[in-house]
Amino acid sequence: MTTIATDETRSLIASDKVEGTAVFNRAGERLGTVSRFMVDKRSGKVDYAVLSFGGLFGLGRDHYPLPWNVLTYDTHRGGYVVDLDPKVLENAPRYAEEREPAFDERYGRELYTYYGIAWPY
Amino acid sequence: MTTIATDETRSLIASDKVEGTAVFNRAGERLGTVSRFMVDKRSGKVDYAVLSFGGLFGLGRDHYPLPWNVLTYDTHRGGYVVDLDPKVLENAPRYAEEREPAFDERYGRELYTYYGIAWPY
Repeated sequence: MTTIATDETRSLIASDKVEGTAVFNRAGERLGTVSRFMVDKRSGKVDYAVLSFGGLFGLGRDHYPLPWNVLTYDTHRGGYVVDLDPKVLENAPRYAEEREPAFDERYGRELYTYYGIAWPY
Repeated sequence: MTTIATDETRSLIASDKVEGTAVFNRAGERLGTVSRFMVDKRSGKVDYAVLSFGGLFGLGRDHYPLPWNVLTYDTHRGGYVVDLDPKVLENAPRYAEEREPAFDERYGRELYTYYGIAWPY
């Protein structure tokens, strides 16, 4: 109880609590975890949450950058739910461990378009 | 070089890279580190960066929640700079390790007012 009260208030969540949190699909299957998220230094806005899975000790893992608002926190499951068609996730932009993209505006626009979300910048 | 390129792009920074980053004052003195930051779950906006210092192995540490835009990243120093009068920081709202505040709207308004920043919600 105390941990929940201190780490997560009604509308705020601590950065170190987001990292490592499980991500589920609509069917309740565990897809992976949020490994990190990317914050715009000037605006302080979270642009991407990175969903990661697979691999052993971080080797060979796949990373899916997701627009923040694709994720919904589900208190019942204790993790985030990605309410997307399995086919959408199957074909989603991803990168391998050592091949992180530039995360520039072009990449952002393409990613947000893929998920049908307006690029907010 | 590779680490910088992958963890921090021109305008984005990885959450796990913010945590543990040093914070300096105007004079270049090391104040402490960013222990975590608080993200609004709905908007994905960073409300507070928590500057922490003192204590041994996390015991007896003091925590100063700061509005995100009080911090400026200084590539030269490799950390954040808090451009505030020492007296302002000396009297700033803080909390002890086991006494995290509620981070509700009232707390937010008081904190932002203390730092002379308009409450953005």
